[in-house]
Amino acid sequence: MLEINSLQNSRIKDAVRLRNRRERRSSGRTLIDGVRELTRALACDFPVTEVFFSEAVIDPADLAALRAVLHKHPQVEMIRVSEPVLEKLSFGDRLEGVVAVARCPVRNLADIPLGKNPLIVVLERVEKPGNLGALLRTLDAVGGDLLISADGQTDLYNPNVIRASSGAVFRVPVVEATTEETLTFLCQIGATICAARVDGSRVYTELDYRDQPIALVLGNEAEGLTDRWTGIDIEAIHLPMRGIADSLNVSTTAAVLLYEVLRQRSQS
Amino acid sequence: MLEINSLQNSRIKDAVRLRNRRERRSSGRTLIDGVRELTRALACDFPVTEVFFSEAVIDPADLAALRAVLHKHPQVEMIRVSEPVLEKLSFGDRLEGVVAVARCPVRNLADIPLGKNPLIVVLERVEKPGNLGALLRTLDAVGGDLLISADGQTDLYNPNVIRASSGAVFRVPVVEATTEETLTFLCQIGATICAARVDGSRVYTELDYRDQPIALVLGNEAEGLTDRWTGIDIEAIHLPMRGIADSLNVSTTAAVLLYEVLRQRSQS
Repeated sequence: MLEINSLQNSRIKDAVRLRNRRERRSSGRTLIDGVRELTRALACDFPVTEVFFSEAVIDPADLAALRAVLHKHPQVEMIRVSEPVLEKLSFGDRLEGVVAVARCPVRNLADIPLGKNPLIVVLERVEKPGNLGALLRTLDAVGGDLLISADGQTDLYNPNVIRASSGAVFRVPVVEATTEETLTFLCQIGATICAARVDGSRVYTELDYRDQPIALVLGNEAEGLTDRWTGIDIEAIHLPMRGIADSLNVSTTAAVLLYEVLRQRSQS
Repeated sequence: MLEINSLQNSRIKDAVRLRNRRERRSSGRTLIDGVRELTRALACDFPVTEVFFSEAVIDPADLAALRAVLHKHPQVEMIRVSEPVLEKLSFGDRLEGVVAVARCPVRNLADIPLGKNPLIVVLERVEKPGNLGALLRTLDAVGGDLLISADGQTDLYNPNVIRASSGAVFRVPVVEATTEETLTFLCQIGATICAARVDGSRVYTELDYRDQPIALVLGNEAEGLTDRWTGIDIEAIHLPMRGIADSLNVSTTAAVLLYEVLRQRSQS
């Protein structure tokens, strides 16, 4: 097994550079922090290429579990590193003893296999990786089919998305597209488009989400949805707001909507 | 109007110390950051005592709005400070031009006026102020009546709670109590106690939340609820989990539960 103890090693430097968004985009690779996230990535056959680990840091039980999983993925290279090298590779003070490099799949809307009556979330112009990650975690929890980041301002496999999603980003198909491409796609698959707006004309519980493809569309927290998500073919929905604020966090709103869809579909 | 330009001024030093939890607890005071949060505190008659502001930083429209509100609260002292003083008072890089000091009300469970069939959330052993704040924001949004922090590890008026709640902490009654006191109180008011557990025996949508006092009980994210929240008089509920994880963030779980209660109660 390869062992690296030098902070100046070119493979270490290459990996550290992936903390930078531009570097992730140009190389098509990203970093996965943490044992749980890496285990989930492997379980979902996400294209992990290298795993850097430090025996001085990682919990022995975690290492044993990881080795067992990696045994089934012989294409992944294990690289033993010193504690200072691992610290350099790690994010902030989160030091679990393992950082991995993976290739980011690039998928188009046409590539995603969808079953009957899929449940899709569209997040328009999302800026915060944490919001995208939290939403993916909930979409995975309800067994949703696809997340589309429309005109998004953050990369799908940003390490902060991975962390906030608890690894759900490896399981739920996620695609970047423009708002126009998204609208065309949703039209093609015959989805009922439900746009969450503070001034939406219908309470979200009034709609029937069963027996049809559903797309829940949410905007970014500061500005909401653009005007492209209006029209007679789009349902504008809102959550009742009885307090001092007129809106909730986008991932909270999404969770309430997604579980209402699941509730209705579980009844039918 | 008092004007302070010295970083060594004792009132400035006193206020800065309130970033420290122990100091907040011993003095019974806290800090409010931001124009929106302060406006909401005043609208809810929260006992704000001093407002430090810097004309070099605050948006003129914000200042005008704030002055208009403060006109109705003559007991609040306005103190003009220089930009460096405001920076010293402010949290991180969030510089909106205003920081206020307020007294923290200490309330007991017996002090809270409750109407018929109140909706109560109990958060046991919460550690992260952000979770408490996010939950308060949603509880306010559904028009809930009370949040009890049982055996909590964070102070209710922590500046991070204020920020994460978007000021909802000023509107929803919040009380600290022990788990034992909480159980006794809920029993006294005849509440149906619904404890959210990963292995809860019933799906949350199976219960009828109408026409009775309801207490939704949630544990901290790492460890869940203690064993005190088990027994024949307690309903153990869970959210369906169809993904790779077995639980959601506590504030997400709370939002789904709270909106289900609101949905049912809106129908009756």
